[in-house]
Amino acid sequence: MQEIVASFYDLGMLSKSQIGFIKSLHQKKYRKENGLFIVEGMKTLMEFFSSKYQIQSIYYLPQYQSLLPKLPSNIKLFEVNNAELEKISTLQAPQGILALIAIPANEEVDPENLKHSFSLVLDGVQDPGNMGTIIRTADWFGFKHIICSANTVEVFNPKTAQATMGSLARVQVSYVNLTEYLPRVNVPLYAAMLDGESIFKVNWQQEGLIVLGNEGKGISDEVAELVTRRITIPRVGAAESLNVSISAAIICAEVSRNLYK
Amino acid sequence: MQEIVASFYDLGMLSKSQIGFIKSLHQKKYRKENGLFIVEGMKTLMEFFSSKYQIQSIYYLPQYQSLLPKLPSNIKLFEVNNAELEKISTLQAPQGILALIAIPANEEVDPENLKHSFSLVLDGVQDPGNMGTIIRTADWFGFKHIICSANTVEVFNPKTAQATMGSLARVQVSYVNLTEYLPRVNVPLYAAMLDGESIFKVNWQQEGLIVLGNEGKGISDEVAELVTRRITIPRVGAAESLNVSISAAIICAEVSRNLYK
Repeated sequence: MQEIVASFYDLGMLSKSQIGFIKSLHQKKYRKENGLFIVEGMKTLMEFFSSKYQIQSIYYLPQYQSLLPKLPSNIKLFEVNNAELEKISTLQAPQGILALIAIPANEEVDPENLKHSFSLVLDGVQDPGNMGTIIRTADWFGFKHIICSANTVEVFNPKTAQATMGSLARVQVSYVNLTEYLPRVNVPLYAAMLDGESIFKVNWQQEGLIVLGNEGKGISDEVAELVTRRITIPRVGAAESLNVSISAAIICAEVSRNLYK
Repeated sequence: MQEIVASFYDLGMLSKSQIGFIKSLHQKKYRKENGLFIVEGMKTLMEFFSSKYQIQSIYYLPQYQSLLPKLPSNIKLFEVNNAELEKISTLQAPQGILALIAIPANEEVDPENLKHSFSLVLDGVQDPGNMGTIIRTADWFGFKHIICSANTVEVFNPKTAQATMGSLARVQVSYVNLTEYLPRVNVPLYAAMLDGESIFKVNWQQEGLIVLGNEGKGISDEVAELVTRRITIPRVGAAESLNVSISAAIICAEVSRNLYK
């Protein structure tokens, strides 16, 4: 990142059309059309500032100006007031600063890069909060890649981006056709299902993909056919199922325990 | 549960005051005032029907009538239409059936009953979804009790009750003054903190309480002073923290792995 103090300041009010434009990015259709998504909060934004993501513009309350790091000069800075921030924010309680960030091109991960490590595969996860929490957890355990089916929730949804708490800046999320992609990846394909081997007894070794399915329907039939190892989190009590972000976390932890024991 | 077919049917429209009353229960103040909370969805309600919870009334779309089990005759049944259900529901997509259930008295768990098992302690958890997910996870792993500080989110919040997916019917949640209560419990007091022993190396033995703190502030100073064993989920990657429901799940799984290995 170039260390040039941003040279463009606009201290006036935002125009109606600026506000309308930012609000349009709350919707997937306009995020796609404009190639931009919204991230809020200084702590989370700091993670994006020091990443390969391209920041397009930043909107902040006056008291946040002194907290901004040195930023490339092409980033547009706008001081806003509370009323303006409330209009453009996706949050019930806006966090003082909001940025528009360029949506990077969706890049397929070279299957070779998935060897000698563990990655997650999401097959139709729908809840933005679950998706965001999974990315944050993957980042905690050092998982670098999350491969998603085309029908998995959009990662640039504000609720998802926010729930990652900045981890989206580090974990690479890509969308692929799983039935075409997975057969090209030459590592064990694990999937969390109800009739598998206990995750506490699996011989994890050093690499694998772990598939997690849709909140209601689980893993799709097409993907289930490709799975080489069905795994299960042993149940002691009576709950019928676990939340998908919880299952992901328990499996990530168990993999991590085995890798670093 | 008595096996008498419910004798009271009201096939007419709900009155304005009935709708107003149920909507008032979306708010904590009126739940407390009336001693009732809302649960929605047939699958979740089935868990409450077969529990010690007292159902007060049920509101359902016509097609759900045949799915209802035999219920005690004192439960009031109301057939409603879509428009009525949308008005009284707490959900964006109502699930066809909604019940009002009596809020049970808050009972302190006898400290003796916490011996020879593991239980969770929530010290100021604020997010209703996190709270609900923690209850669901605790139920999966057979944890029977969750002890909460007075400032922990209300468990009868619709978002919490719904996120438990029925597990609230089985796990006992009680609110206490933790600084008075915890010293009376004679089992090891673990707490998830950033500077503790790896959860993968703890000698868990057969009993304990596991404290989880507030989403932003962690565990309160007063409770931290009582903790006998600080534990940590080892981090491999770069995320700054884990969501509290994720931390709870990873610790529950690790305790379970040790108890049943």
